[in-house]
Amino acid sequence: MTTVAFIGLGAMGYRMAAHLPKHFETVWVWNRNFEKAKQHATEYGTQAVELSQAVQADLIFSCLPTSQDVDALIDQVQIKSGAIWIDCTSGVPEAARALSSKLQQHNVQFLDAPVSGQTIGAENATLTFMVGGDADVFAQALPAMQAMGKLIKHVGESGAGFAVKAVNNMLMAVHLCAAAEGFTTLKAHGVNLHEALDCINESSGKSGVTENVLPQRVLNRAFPLTFALPLLAKDTGIAVDLVREAKLSAPIIGLTQSLIQAANDTAAPDSDFSAAVKMYESWSKITLE
Amino acid sequence: MTTVAFIGLGAMGYRMAAHLPKHFETVWVWNRNFEKAKQHATEYGTQAVELSQAVQADLIFSCLPTSQDVDALIDQVQIKSGAIWIDCTSGVPEAARALSSKLQQHNVQFLDAPVSGQTIGAENATLTFMVGGDADVFAQALPAMQAMGKLIKHVGESGAGFAVKAVNNMLMAVHLCAAAEGFTTLKAHGVNLHEALDCINESSGKSGVTENVLPQRVLNRAFPLTFALPLLAKDTGIAVDLVREAKLSAPIIGLTQSLIQAANDTAAPDSDFSAAVKMYESWSKITLE
Amino acid sequence: MTTVAFIGLGAMGYRMAAHLPKHFETVWVWNRNFEKAKQHATEYGTQAVELSQAVQADLIFSCLPTSQDVDALIDQVQIKSGAIWIDCTSGVPEAARALSSKLQQHNVQFLDAPVSGQTIGAENATLTFMVGGDADVFAQALPAMQAMGKLIKHVGESGAGFAVKAVNNMLMAVHLCAAAEGFTTLKAHGVNLHEALDCINESSGKSGVTENVLPQRVLNRAFPLTFALPLLAKDTGIAVDLVREAKLSAPIIGLTQSLIQAANDTAAPDSDFSAAVKMYESWSKITLE
Amino acid sequence: MTTVAFIGLGAMGYRMAAHLPKHFETVWVWNRNFEKAKQHATEYGTQAVELSQAVQADLIFSCLPTSQDVDALIDQVQIKSGAIWIDCTSGVPEAARALSSKLQQHNVQFLDAPVSGQTIGAENATLTFMVGGDADVFAQALPAMQAMGKLIKHVGESGAGFAVKAVNNMLMAVHLCAAAEGFTTLKAHGVNLHEALDCINESSGKSGVTENVLPQRVLNRAFPLTFALPLLAKDTGIAVDLVREAKLSAPIIGLTQSLIQAANDTAAPDSDFSAAVKMYESWSKITLE
Repeated sequence: MTTVAFIGLGAMGYRMAAHLPKHFETVWVWNRNFEKAKQHATEYGTQAVELSQAVQADLIFSCLPTSQDVDALIDQVQIKSGAIWIDCTSGVPEAARALSSKLQQHNVQFLDAPVSGQTIGAENATLTFMVGGDADVFAQALPAMQAMGKLIKHVGESGAGFAVKAVNNMLMAVHLCAAAEGFTTLKAHGVNLHEALDCINESSGKSGVTENVLPQRVLNRAFPLTFALPLLAKDTGIAVDLVREAKLSAPIIGLTQSLIQAANDTAAPDSDFSAAVKMYESWSKITLE
Repeated sequence: MTTVAFIGLGAMGYRMAAHLPKHFETVWVWNRNFEKAKQHATEYGTQAVELSQAVQADLIFSCLPTSQDVDALIDQVQIKSGAIWIDCTSGVPEAARALSSKLQQHNVQFLDAPVSGQTIGAENATLTFMVGGDADVFAQALPAMQAMGKLIKHVGESGAGFAVKAVNNMLMAVHLCAAAEGFTTLKAHGVNLHEALDCINESSGKSGVTENVLPQRVLNRAFPLTFALPLLAKDTGIAVDLVREAKLSAPIIGLTQSLIQAANDTAAPDSDFSAAVKMYESWSKITLE
Repeated sequence: MTTVAFIGLGAMGYRMAAHLPKHFETVWVWNRNFEKAKQHATEYGTQAVELSQAVQADLIFSCLPTSQDVDALIDQVQIKSGAIWIDCTSGVPEAARALSSKLQQHNVQFLDAPVSGQTIGAENATLTFMVGGDADVFAQALPAMQAMGKLIKHVGESGAGFAVKAVNNMLMAVHLCAAAEGFTTLKAHGVNLHEALDCINESSGKSGVTENVLPQRVLNRAFPLTFALPLLAKDTGIAVDLVREAKLSAPIIGLTQSLIQAANDTAAPDSDFSAAVKMYESWSKITLE
Repeated sequence: MTTVAFIGLGAMGYRMAAHLPKHFETVWVWNRNFEKAKQHATEYGTQAVELSQAVQADLIFSCLPTSQDVDALIDQVQIKSGAIWIDCTSGVPEAARALSSKLQQHNVQFLDAPVSGQTIGAENATLTFMVGGDADVFAQALPAMQAMGKLIKHVGESGAGFAVKAVNNMLMAVHLCAAAEGFTTLKAHGVNLHEALDCINESSGKSGVTENVLPQRVLNRAFPLTFALPLLAKDTGIAVDLVREAKLSAPIIGLTQSLIQAANDTAAPDSDFSAAVKMYESWSKITLE
């Protein structure tokens, strides 16, 4: 019988791990703040265990802020031989390759399997998993990922999952900056932003940002903190590093990273990623509402 | 009884005017290459008339390549007093304001009413109209626009429709450049682009470009000429001019205009807008397929 | 005997006009704040006259903040037939061409003749004049310009002088932004900025900015207000408009204009152009000293 | 008596090493293509020796294409305990720190000491040395550097020298792109480029590029290969990596790196760095002459 563990019960992990007991008999959870693990056990019928026990599971999921956190955690433990580690962190492709090599020496397989779909997708088990690593290992881990996601794709070798996630988030960052610029310009010319948004969302210029971020976070001035701006800054940095490693020319990606970095440098603490538009607002004295 | 005219039977206009006879008894069409007007009359039951007669209609639609073409055409004719001129060209906001003032002196009302939805939207009468001008005039012209479109929005004063269209097309251009950069980077790192695209289209980084342009034009190497790259270059220029007029800072918009301009400068003749990605391909020697 | 007038006794004009009495017997000066004209007369032996008289001179110099100011002023007056108007404003090429045509109808010749060299160059009569307009007219005006400048160049037709000045100031703006970025980066890596500056000023990366602006304005935290940031923002905008008119792709120029615009939007009132670096400092929390 | 070795007799190293016999009795030289070392010995009175002997000198200079070349070479040899290694390569700051630590374990001190001044400066012993590393070690190596240079500066800890060089070359790259854009724009507007250049070189927009590169390499269409474009692309990449490591926002640096990368990707083989302007020329169809 397959045992499953979930390490890291943040906003995403807490909701993701909740689906596992429906498909697996033994589900171990661990969290640095251990009270959260106990609460999860009470709420969803998982078992809160020590980290040393969690890493004895057959399938071990992790969902932490950065690749560095994953590296630091793995350095402390002795993982069960034959286990598969599925890292859902939005991590660094190079780190995935390094970790994969290292774990293979202990007969542990590693998949980089970042997710998208936000907390709502985690709650409804409709996440998208973009997975890098060995195809056979992917096949073995697939059922457990299906318990939490809807679209689960093997996108390439080790690191490929992290790469796709970094590019996805970079595209989102580009779209956000462009929308901030475009809508500031329209408002400066007296255009009704809500009507303009309706038009654009039926036109070629639409994006996830115009469909979701602008109406649900920006134009209503809500800026709910569900994905922190520093994490977006980190992800855009990963995308730039991918460009650099491949010695490519990617001007829009490079500039967007600079802009998100500057927005983050000047943002209020605990800013949602969508608050990046406030940098533009401070420049133009125009409020996007 | 309201008479309607349609001037400019290009890829868009030809299909748009085809819907008018279903709602109006008298529909006049005119085209510089007059054979096309005659063909339209035969095919759809419109009447091919001289330009001088077309401008005697109550509602006059125009759909030409640029605002300059509209200006030049209007300079030649004497428009019926009391008519409404509805310009569906992707034009220049400043030109709309100038033309509107000029026509008002002859008791002709002007609406800038660019459309989106491409030839398929024109064929199915599902276009989006983004309309600038007087609200009462908009209300009078609304039924005729409804004959050809689905979402018809009054977005502001004269020029506002052109402004929204320019920003929409600019956003699309940004998304296109960003997608070209992101997918080139992914391919350089060995990622399967089709699987990656599926993931991104279920994630926060999606856009009209990733949903439609990449699969239907780029990854299949079709690049069908339905919206010419020089016209996109023109539209991105209009967006930059809007930024300049309002004395705003819009770095992504500015850079994208430079990139589209360079792509256009180096493109093969008769390139579709989607062929802008070929500039990136010539840099990276990576083909997006 | 040639009469000369100087209109606009700002920081530059006041010093420039001071040299004219050494070479011309009759030198009229006018300034909106007329006290300044009277003071100039007392100090340098010029004559403070009404504007209507000033424009009766054979050679009329103007040095105002913008081309709009020059246009507005010229609209109020009747200039002597046969006069040459030499405009030292950092103006708009298009305005030069328009003004030149207009004045020619009244038999007045126009030269766009912006200067560089700052107040020190004005004081020492070592300014550089970059002059656009008719070559014969240039030859006639040359001696008067030589009274105030050292290098006086005819760079092309009407507007060419303003174009060269706009590009010069744009280059300076680019160099300033680049230096701010480069030196912030060096300081973040623990490099001694003064030693680094010495090295760069002996190397290929030097510029007027590294040679003069950094040591005399930035690293010493002086930021003396001698050339206001909004005027640099205006000049970079003129350069961008030149790029647009010629339908060129100039990514660095475009981005620099966006950055200077943003720096200006967030700067303290009465900021010297060199204070643009403070935007970078607010991002990085690194002070360039 | 101090023995000195020089490793790497390329365009720079060959000329640099020529000065050493004037100040040191024993000067060993080594080059991968050993014929060049023998020729140097004949020409300048140095001694061509095996690599294993060269690394027995008290002071060992290296001047190779990249930090990777230096690393690879050092991995093959056993350096004399107590020696000082002075690396004049335009290298990577991070590599300097790593190499410095590694060599210290074998009691070898490392200085990163890149130079500027080009082949003419090497020939005339007027190079600028920007040096990172321990201050005492710098003092010991100073006389040997003075034999080849004029301005020799200790700019900070290990890696600081490489950092200053990377930023210097980045600034030069920025100035080059900006000049290409600015002068293309001027020519499009009919301005005489040579006259404009004279004006700018007396104005605030001047740079090493306008003073030297444009007249000596570009406007005369010479593009002599003395500093290869791929090496400039490498150096601009190092600057971007410095920005990334420090988590800064440097939009102009980022964009310039993208442009130089693209220019390099599309350049003819064996292009001088100045040929980067040809990318702009291919866009605008305007030749800078």
